[in-house]
Amino acid sequence: MVDIGKFVNDIENFLRERVYPREPVWLAKPFVEIEHELFSLRREVKARGWWAPYLPIASGGSGLALLDYARVSEVLGTTPYGHYVFHCQAPDVGNIEVLLSHGTDEQRATFLEPLVKGLTRSCFAMTEPEHAGSNPTWLSTEAVREGDSYVLNGHKWFTTGADGAAFAIVMAVTDPAAAPHLRASQILVPTDAEGFERVRNLPVMGAPEAGWPSHSEVRLTNCRVPLGNRIGDEGAGFRIAQERLGPGRIHHCMRWVGIMQRAIELTAKRAHYRETAPGEKLADKQAIVHLLADSQADYLSSRLLVLDAATQIDKSGMHAAREAISLIKFVVAQALGRVLDRAIQVHGALGMLDETPLAYWYRHERAARIYDGADEVHKNVVGKAVLRSAVGRP
Amino acid sequence: MVDIGKFVNDIENFLRERVYPREPVWLAKPFVEIEHELFSLRREVKARGWWAPYLPIASGGSGLALLDYARVSEVLGTTPYGHYVFHCQAPDVGNIEVLLSHGTDEQRATFLEPLVKGLTRSCFAMTEPEHAGSNPTWLSTEAVREGDSYVLNGHKWFTTGADGAAFAIVMAVTDPAAAPHLRASQILVPTDAEGFERVRNLPVMGAPEAGWPSHSEVRLTNCRVPLGNRIGDEGAGFRIAQERLGPGRIHHCMRWVGIMQRAIELTAKRAHYRETAPGEKLADKQAIVHLLADSQADYLSSRLLVLDAATQIDKSGMHAAREAISLIKFVVAQALGRVLDRAIQVHGALGMLDETPLAYWYRHERAARIYDGADEVHKNVVGKAVLRSAVGRP
Amino acid sequence: MVDIGKFVNDIENFLRERVYPREPVWLAKPFVEIEHELFSLRREVKARGWWAPYLPIASGGSGLALLDYARVSEVLGTTPYGHYVFHCQAPDVGNIEVLLSHGTDEQRATFLEPLVKGLTRSCFAMTEPEHAGSNPTWLSTEAVREGDSYVLNGHKWFTTGADGAAFAIVMAVTDPAAAPHLRASQILVPTDAEGFERVRNLPVMGAPEAGWPSHSEVRLTNCRVPLGNRIGDEGAGFRIAQERLGPGRIHHCMRWVGIMQRAIELTAKRAHYRETAPGEKLADKQAIVHLLADSQADYLSSRLLVLDAATQIDKSGMHAAREAISLIKFVVAQALGRVLDRAIQVHGALGMLDETPLAYWYRHERAARIYDGADEVHKNVVGKAVLRSAVGRP
Amino acid sequence: MVDIGKFVNDIENFLRERVYPREPVWLAKPFVEIEHELFSLRREVKARGWWAPYLPIASGGSGLALLDYARVSEVLGTTPYGHYVFHCQAPDVGNIEVLLSHGTDEQRATFLEPLVKGLTRSCFAMTEPEHAGSNPTWLSTEAVREGDSYVLNGHKWFTTGADGAAFAIVMAVTDPAAAPHLRASQILVPTDAEGFERVRNLPVMGAPEAGWPSHSEVRLTNCRVPLGNRIGDEGAGFRIAQERLGPGRIHHCMRWVGIMQRAIELTAKRAHYRETAPGEKLADKQAIVHLLADSQADYLSSRLLVLDAATQIDKSGMHAAREAISLIKFVVAQALGRVLDRAIQVHGALGMLDETPLAYWYRHERAARIYDGADEVHKNVVGKAVLRSAVGRP
Repeated sequence: MVDIGKFVNDIENFLRERVYPREPVWLAKPFVEIEHELFSLRREVKARGWWAPYLPIASGGSGLALLDYARVSEVLGTTPYGHYVFHCQAPDVGNIEVLLSHGTDEQRATFLEPLVKGLTRSCFAMTEPEHAGSNPTWLSTEAVREGDSYVLNGHKWFTTGADGAAFAIVMAVTDPAAAPHLRASQILVPTDAEGFERVRNLPVMGAPEAGWPSHSEVRLTNCRVPLGNRIGDEGAGFRIAQERLGPGRIHHCMRWVGIMQRAIELTAKRAHYRETAPGEKLADKQAIVHLLADSQADYLSSRLLVLDAATQIDKSGMHAAREAISLIKFVVAQALGRVLDRAIQVHGALGMLDETPLAYWYRHERAARIYDGADEVHKNVVGKAVLRSAVGRP
Repeated sequence: MVDIGKFVNDIENFLRERVYPREPVWLAKPFVEIEHELFSLRREVKARGWWAPYLPIASGGSGLALLDYARVSEVLGTTPYGHYVFHCQAPDVGNIEVLLSHGTDEQRATFLEPLVKGLTRSCFAMTEPEHAGSNPTWLSTEAVREGDSYVLNGHKWFTTGADGAAFAIVMAVTDPAAAPHLRASQILVPTDAEGFERVRNLPVMGAPEAGWPSHSEVRLTNCRVPLGNRIGDEGAGFRIAQERLGPGRIHHCMRWVGIMQRAIELTAKRAHYRETAPGEKLADKQAIVHLLADSQADYLSSRLLVLDAATQIDKSGMHAAREAISLIKFVVAQALGRVLDRAIQVHGALGMLDETPLAYWYRHERAARIYDGADEVHKNVVGKAVLRSAVGRP
Repeated sequence: MVDIGKFVNDIENFLRERVYPREPVWLAKPFVEIEHELFSLRREVKARGWWAPYLPIASGGSGLALLDYARVSEVLGTTPYGHYVFHCQAPDVGNIEVLLSHGTDEQRATFLEPLVKGLTRSCFAMTEPEHAGSNPTWLSTEAVREGDSYVLNGHKWFTTGADGAAFAIVMAVTDPAAAPHLRASQILVPTDAEGFERVRNLPVMGAPEAGWPSHSEVRLTNCRVPLGNRIGDEGAGFRIAQERLGPGRIHHCMRWVGIMQRAIELTAKRAHYRETAPGEKLADKQAIVHLLADSQADYLSSRLLVLDAATQIDKSGMHAAREAISLIKFVVAQALGRVLDRAIQVHGALGMLDETPLAYWYRHERAARIYDGADEVHKNVVGKAVLRSAVGRP
Repeated sequence: MVDIGKFVNDIENFLRERVYPREPVWLAKPFVEIEHELFSLRREVKARGWWAPYLPIASGGSGLALLDYARVSEVLGTTPYGHYVFHCQAPDVGNIEVLLSHGTDEQRATFLEPLVKGLTRSCFAMTEPEHAGSNPTWLSTEAVREGDSYVLNGHKWFTTGADGAAFAIVMAVTDPAAAPHLRASQILVPTDAEGFERVRNLPVMGAPEAGWPSHSEVRLTNCRVPLGNRIGDEGAGFRIAQERLGPGRIHHCMRWVGIMQRAIELTAKRAHYRETAPGEKLADKQAIVHLLADSQADYLSSRLLVLDAATQIDKSGMHAAREAISLIKFVVAQALGRVLDRAIQVHGALGMLDETPLAYWYRHERAARIYDGADEVHKNVVGKAVLRSAVGRP
């Protein structure tokens, strides 16, 4: 069994030596120009046996429990490149988990195996520009059976990593007449299939990225795939998506916890060396000291809440933990926003530049309060649960 | 060994049946008029073996670890009368702990034994009107040796429970020339000693209370007590006070967590039965649902932070945990303020009345952000610790 | 015409000399014990020609426009006794305005004249414990015509100043079948009428007060008054109430602005003289400096918003300004809460005591976010107005 | 004299018709690719007599008072292109004002005239990477007299618009031995002078821009300019900079007020058309209604504060208004951040894209809380002023 403390420590040392020092260079370049350097690090990670540690040992991972993987996700989150280098990047992790749990032998051989090895990338096409992502059962993309095929038509966006992906898992309505939660299925669509069009990479808080960190608009026009490309039962799309969301939110939240930790470290260092007058350091200003205390409180409370939710999932399963998961989703995303905002304030003009990871996170992690359920959606879940729990109390 | 889950559950049931229903009556009366009812409940608590569970079994308690007692303090905190009924009320708990650890046999026989049994009450006279409580080493009260006596002169306020107490533990300077942390000693002063004057009970957010919940101004004028009334070594006053502050802050913070829990329950119930128009409940308003979600987040994160700090104390001792203690002190006190404010808002006009515990807590727990170190003091501690931890990081 | 700048300045000097120094004494006593001192000041105010300056000159006032009276209300608000001493206290001001605008000659002779002179006091009975005050059209109190009388039955609370009042203006349903806004009428009920029962003075954030600052629970049981006691038309109760609410909210908001101004002054002074160590003043701490800056921003922005709303009312009337009035109601009440909270924090233990006006305001002005429409109600008004204004924009 | 209401209205109509519809296209492109379209609009603006309205009529402007120009800056601020199209863009406005007030005839002929006409652009090189911008007197760039020349050496960054500028006004130390505020002078340096090197355009929250909206790192190496290029007296650099900062802050703050106004309009529209389920609009959700109320309060209070500060400057001059200016600088910048954050939240995924101006503003206006004095600096000014005003109060 893995000594998780040592594992996390080893990863941290690796990141501090090999990744942190390269950040200023990498942040200044498009992803495709630094990919070769990252590939080389990925090979090294694989050689050390650290590859994709969430995977079962049989699949080449370390078989970590959710609680343990949470701590790995935290340390990987301290740099924008951590998850990618350790093959823990979204959306591939989620797709791998879905295929591990629900894939047929053929699907596994074709789609899963090269993905697990890092030979391919994948994407997950769910959100549609015409409908609010906060209502995941409201989709217009359809997959209509014709003979032994599904014919897909629809419009997606924010399909992360579509640029360069070998395949997409597409959420499409297979039975419009069914109850909302039973309408859709998850269908594997190779990105080179006829009718699968990557319209453009979206300009997300800046110029569009290419490759893994890109988010694409995708159009499906009479795109035909075999019925065998459906994952799980027809109509199970939403249920399978829910399964991945729980652990996925733990991963995200712990990544944000890692970001907070690093942002605080960067802020504290900045406060030590930055002077506002000769010999007068930011670290001597009470406003800065108190700001760090607030960020530390945000970081530590977020961390305990996420680890507690992971423990609940490990012990009692996703369903029992769903309110805990909703709670961390909005609480940690908001804490992250505050911590990054404070970190940038202390960095001053430097904080506005893509020379530390702070500006990168500030721009891109604003989405944390929107995707996977906006804050408002999760507050509804938690508030209503509190209301229910009070019914019948004497 | 105590089954802490069952113990907490039993206490909760007892409070729900015997205490909560009496609150509207008790809150409307001065403490001295309800004392006989509380005495009767205290006898019952003793009979059930629940008395002062933080005490060692040998002293009549349940010998709970700090982490376990924290959970007891939480459930007792759900009503303003919980700690008193279970003989867990400040400042007696702290005085008992100090005498258990540092009292001489004679001090124990004279002062501790009747206090443990609940036959007497006590107080702790530290804060002075002339000096900021945020700097506990800055005191003017002096105890000068004359023969086999100390002669005390000084001025104290916010001496909780002095009205009706058998004795005070007075923090007084015994060596003005020593280093700040070695100047003061803790000295036992019977309240009927000549020169010990309870000037008045203070009007704390309303008319002055009498008895246990009162806070007094006290003047010591040539007040003479035997040298044997000193607790511990001369000059050890501050060190002994620090010892009691760590666990004391866990007790306070878990009491506040209990208050938050109850405030949320009261709020949720109110939202269920209060209509803004026929058939239109507060519980149907999204503003109320979201407000409850925010309070739940404040409550759960506070709870995890305090339990984590208690675990650190149990495992590594007070010194190692001092930053965790400073962090919970300001974080939980602020969360408490927010939760109570929201609860009152949902209760509307009723929230302004001393008919639920909310108004009582709103008024009296405003002090939570002031006593035992104001928020600003603890933020200094935490922020500086964060700064230190960043030094030397590559 | 009044030179408003000089008028405000004269009042400020009067308050600084004659009222501020008495506050510590007065705050420590029930209102009825200090009333004689206040009466003597009221006589002096009358002698100087400063009495009730909102009144038309013909009625013995100074005939101030709303914008000018707003500035008077601000300076009076700097002490809890200002409005009372200048005969500008709620609810008498509102009742006077209603009777001036809508009273019959007989009503004016009987009820208004002694009230204007300060020989009597009055109250306004609208809020009912059974219904949310946020929906003012939902009332259960009924006034049924029987011959030349109304027979009133109902239950009210938070009837401010009922204790000692000569009469109440009671909001009662006269036509249950009418549209909600046309159901109620305002009816004058002498407090010595048979069937008018002052059940109790409410414990509002502390022990119940007596006299003017009290808030009572009132029960009307077959209470009979002449039809001629109705103010205005039958069914006009709500409309008349709305009329008084607009200027009433300007008065309240400017009173809160005055409170903020005084709280900031008290805080700044405290920061100057309070030391945390010998020679180290609170004023030297950046946390305190920044806190004062935040409070100053709250104060100045509140002030400008209220004066702007008053200008809109003076220029375009109540209806045109109703969104501005809703906006200041929640914005200024929330700013007030923040400023008082900060002031208490800087005062430390002293801030918890009824020795400065801060604790008094902290307790009693919590209601500012509840009465006359809770924050949530006014946010609904403002947010929906913003939504309407965007419709049809290109 | 200009009818300011009509003027602002005409500009608004022009922007709504000619600029708003082009934003989605322009935001997706680098500035240099849309410059020709903007040039064409600038010609039209000039033809209509709207060019640079802050300029005296003699210089081709409309001779607006600061209060009137504030309202123009507000409406121009509703689109990222407004100020540029009307030749009101920073840093050219500031440079023009400095040269108008302090330029010699020769400086005006060479540098000012083509700039006023829009034939050239300019930049202002003050901030240095090695020193905190919050202390503007701490500079390392030096200008040493050699014969009839200054020889400049130094390192600057965040020199806005340097890319494409004809000249820079460089803040350089001319007398290192003088008192801090008398050390530096402002010196005109043509960008094609030998030794003036534009090292790079900085990656400010995204890929580096080119042209006017770029921010450059600049290095001066033995860069020689005639003594006659100094603006005003030697050592007057800081004083002249201060003069431009006051009105400059009014301009900035009103631009931010305009941004808030537009962000609220975009949010309200979005709430009208975006559905979370068929027929269920965001506008129907109380959370969205309340969010709009909060943003409206931020917008209106900011607007009144800035107009009040502008009035103070117009009436009593810069010095008397300096605390009002510090107050609006941090209050309005923070309000702007909140309003933009809420706007993005309501826009959901779309808010993350550079398809509305929101993401652009979110990224770039984060700097509002940093440049021209960080929030913390201005809070120091305001808080200390409050402390001073309390001294000597009875």
